[in-house]
Amino acid sequence: MQERSGQAAGVLVVAGTHGNERNAPWLLEHWQQRPETLASAGLPLHLVLGNPAAYACNRRYLERDLNRCFREALLQDPAEQGLDVRRARELIASHGPKGSEPCGAVIDLHSTTSAMGNCLVVYGRRPADLALAAGIQGRLGLPIYLHEGDASQTGFLLEQWPCGVVIEVGPVPQGVLQARICRQTQLGLEAALAVLAAARAGTLRLPPVLVVHSHLGSLDVPRRADGSPRACIHPALQSRDWVPLHDGDPLFLDADGTVLRFEAEQSGEPPVAVFINEAAYGEKGIALSLTRRQLWSVEESWGQALAQVAAGLGLS
Amino acid sequence: MQERSGQAAGVLVVAGTHGNERNAPWLLEHWQQRPETLASAGLPLHLVLGNPAAYACNRRYLERDLNRCFREALLQDPAEQGLDVRRARELIASHGPKGSEPCGAVIDLHSTTSAMGNCLVVYGRRPADLALAAGIQGRLGLPIYLHEGDASQTGFLLEQWPCGVVIEVGPVPQGVLQARICRQTQLGLEAALAVLAAARAGTLRLPPVLVVHSHLGSLDVPRRADGSPRACIHPALQSRDWVPLHDGDPLFLDADGTVLRFEAEQSGEPPVAVFINEAAYGEKGIALSLTRRQLWSVEESWGQALAQVAAGLGLS
Repeated sequence: MQERSGQAAGVLVVAGTHGNERNAPWLLEHWQQRPETLASAGLPLHLVLGNPAAYACNRRYLERDLNRCFREALLQDPAEQGLDVRRARELIASHGPKGSEPCGAVIDLHSTTSAMGNCLVVYGRRPADLALAAGIQGRLGLPIYLHEGDASQTGFLLEQWPCGVVIEVGPVPQGVLQARICRQTQLGLEAALAVLAAARAGTLRLPPVLVVHSHLGSLDVPRRADGSPRACIHPALQSRDWVPLHDGDPLFLDADGTVLRFEAEQSGEPPVAVFINEAAYGEKGIALSLTRRQLWSVEESWGQALAQVAAGLGLS
Repeated sequence: MQERSGQAAGVLVVAGTHGNERNAPWLLEHWQQRPETLASAGLPLHLVLGNPAAYACNRRYLERDLNRCFREALLQDPAEQGLDVRRARELIASHGPKGSEPCGAVIDLHSTTSAMGNCLVVYGRRPADLALAAGIQGRLGLPIYLHEGDASQTGFLLEQWPCGVVIEVGPVPQGVLQARICRQTQLGLEAALAVLAAARAGTLRLPPVLVVHSHLGSLDVPRRADGSPRACIHPALQSRDWVPLHDGDPLFLDADGTVLRFEAEQSGEPPVAVFINEAAYGEKGIALSLTRRQLWSVEESWGQALAQVAAGLGLS
């Protein structure tokens, strides 16, 4: 790990924001011992285990999902003294933009039980985030899930930093280390750091077009009165992340063999399913999310916003 | 669920012995509500959730793996008052061979993150178990893992009943419901019950030969001094359960990219790998187990032993 010089900000790399996602933390340990194995293009990195207490228990979180703890109302509430919320405050105090070791950008490494492949998650439409995502998509072609307009899911870690993306890799069971998942995570992170370094050097060239999958809403499995699932994801839908859902496509299968089908709400392009059957989302009432695949022209202002963030990143 | 009549024993069907294996418990709830959806061939079934407290937390166990709690020293030790051990005693008291609702055979339904497909696990070489496994293999062709001679892993639930098998299905992440896994579980259980019913009716015909994979030993990933894994399963080995391992085959991959290869200890038939990268076995120091694939002649005495067990199973 390289140290920041003077007041220049670093790049925060977080692994294990969820303690049962084991692949990125395993890489993190390796990078800490052998910094040269992570191409950082001269960027000062701060490599941090997101939720060490949850990681020690191999659980997603202890009391409250750490990656939903980063909203102001929660962070500022003195009555909130849960371990995960306190960890959120600690991360901001140490590595937030005004922290003791300030970071100007963050890459948050996650894994999923859904067959999402290697992809990016962006929260909202901050220009610097879109530029960073576009730069990574230009290098690796990773699909992008734009999470926005979802009042039931807020307080993501990224929101407390001026710029950042989630790198999300799957499918992999919780608690399992897999070489392929590690390799994809490393490639995604190296591409992200290369984009930031190019932005800082003034050499970043973004693709003309960004393909985004913007959040439309989520579907839950049908449930019984006691909350238990009455059906499961239909086998024809399982692992079909990033595939359009057409009116009448099988969605759920109940224990009697009855097929529940997708009913498209509107005409036009069919929505694209993501995060199908993610283990941790059952408790959030999400069996899958629906997105709209869109082509956006990459705007010059995005690159300028990212250049401004990158200019604050210290030289090693 | 059908009730036993008089003193005749039932068949115990256990789901969720591990609380984060969600597929069999989901089926169980369905069978309890709609008993006709489980073909039991007239056998009196006792459908039981193995570890309800662990299931409620979506954890494998609370304090101690319930499926390692069924050894006498532990069960008889008055100082052992952990919740899982107490649940083991409770299961024996209620549904053991001498329990308040006695059961003469048990089918224990499990899932795994390993790519084991639909298979059977048998502990030791009890003739009735071998007959039951042979009968199921004759119907569905399921591979059989014979776990024996492993002093580090003992106290399995099955051992407290006169006859039984584990039906093990994967790959599926912990905490995830998948239609395919449910379907395989149901097929396996129905075949097991059909074999027991045929044995009771005196119509059981066993195949002449049993293919078993008998336990040779287990391999752990290389670890650092602090116990953390220094390497992961090589991607060429991941999901290659039931495939023979030859001398020089890639086994592990460390974070530097170094490949650690399998070194066969003896000449002769190569061992066959099972339970590769099962999430719950990391803490047990098992990255995979090695077995010897063997063809056994099915002995007449096995069928007789099973017939004796089955004769005690009550009419519905």
